[in-house]
Amino acid sequence: MPHAPISDAALDQIFRQARTQNAWLDTPVSETLLRAIYELVALGPTTANSNPTRIVFVTTEEGRKRLAPHLSEGNRAKTMKAPATAIIGYDLKFYDKLPQLFPHNPGAREWFSGSEELAEKTAFRNSSLEGAYFIIAARALGLDTGPMSGFNNAGVDQEFFAGTSIKSNFICAIGHGDPAAVFPRSPRLSFEEACRIV
Amino acid sequence: MPHAPISDAALDQIFRQARTQNAWLDTPVSETLLRAIYELVALGPTTANSNPTRIVFVTTEEGRKRLAPHLSEGNRAKTMKAPATAIIGYDLKFYDKLPQLFPHNPGAREWFSGSEELAEKTAFRNSSLEGAYFIIAARALGLDTGPMSGFNNAGVDQEFFAGTSIKSNFICAIGHGDPAAVFPRSPRLSFEEACRIV
Repeated sequence: MPHAPISDAALDQIFRQARTQNAWLDTPVSETLLRAIYELVALGPTTANSNPTRIVFVTTEEGRKRLAPHLSEGNRAKTMKAPATAIIGYDLKFYDKLPQLFPHNPGAREWFSGSEELAEKTAFRNSSLEGAYFIIAARALGLDTGPMSGFNNAGVDQEFFAGTSIKSNFICAIGHGDPAAVFPRSPRLSFEEACRIV
Repeated sequence: MPHAPISDAALDQIFRQARTQNAWLDTPVSETLLRAIYELVALGPTTANSNPTRIVFVTTEEGRKRLAPHLSEGNRAKTMKAPATAIIGYDLKFYDKLPQLFPHNPGAREWFSGSEELAEKTAFRNSSLEGAYFIIAARALGLDTGPMSGFNNAGVDQEFFAGTSIKSNFICAIGHGDPAAVFPRSPRLSFEEACRIV
């Protein structure tokens, strides 16, 4: 059943007018909304339905204080004002869940469990995909986002994922942004610069 | 300006009812539509607006024949029937475009050009993000997708990216899927299994 494009207003909201935020209004983000984002993210496609992403939502003053020392100078003050910041991580041992997530192929766990390199690459690629689904899902639900990779991954892992096989990928503030703090949009590569058809 | 959520029909189309396809109808995908997908993908956020993704759209019989020998057995026959298959790659030397893409900070190129490891990680993370934007953009424009990592990356790189600093990440068939060939949806991790709030 072929679909028509979604509305221009929806395309504007998730892609065309959506902008990375640098300052946040006080409006809180409810747990209901955090759960609604995750429910959408989890439906996006991943390799062998591996769902390697693990998320810590930092929403309290105590949580923000634990995160602060690991942020780059340029990201610290604004992140302390965000109502919620998601630490998007990936489980290097995601394959232990494959009997649950990919039940029709009992051998799927062993595709990854025998190769640390393949497991790491699969986890990182797919948690990045899911991180992008996260950005789009948050925007689709009416939130703004501020994704960042400027932080000390080892410090965040020690603080939030100690004793696990989970590693941080990137972090993403969510809330309602202050439009006054948005930078002008930078240029993109043209189709001709980035693509070809063969 | 806070947004309402996009419509349920749009959420269904990009997340809830969208499914990975295993067989394709004959309906072609126009160059106009390939360009429209890229225009949306390019707007998604990437680290320092690095836009490292480079895409080859395979749309001709000749292109499919070049791709075929590098696909896994399970992906070959169906991909030969797809009207278009995008090879989503990343340029390891994406930083050479930063003076154009991140013009307000003339030092941005050097953040990455001095560390092969950081450049590789940044390119791979961000081309995976852009790969996810690709999946969502194609769905938003009314297409179905079939993302796959089951292929020989080195073979594809040699065939399509020889003599460049571009490497393949994953491939994604696009077109109009045959609903009869879609598998039942596999389970996902619950919020409690994948997330916590601190």
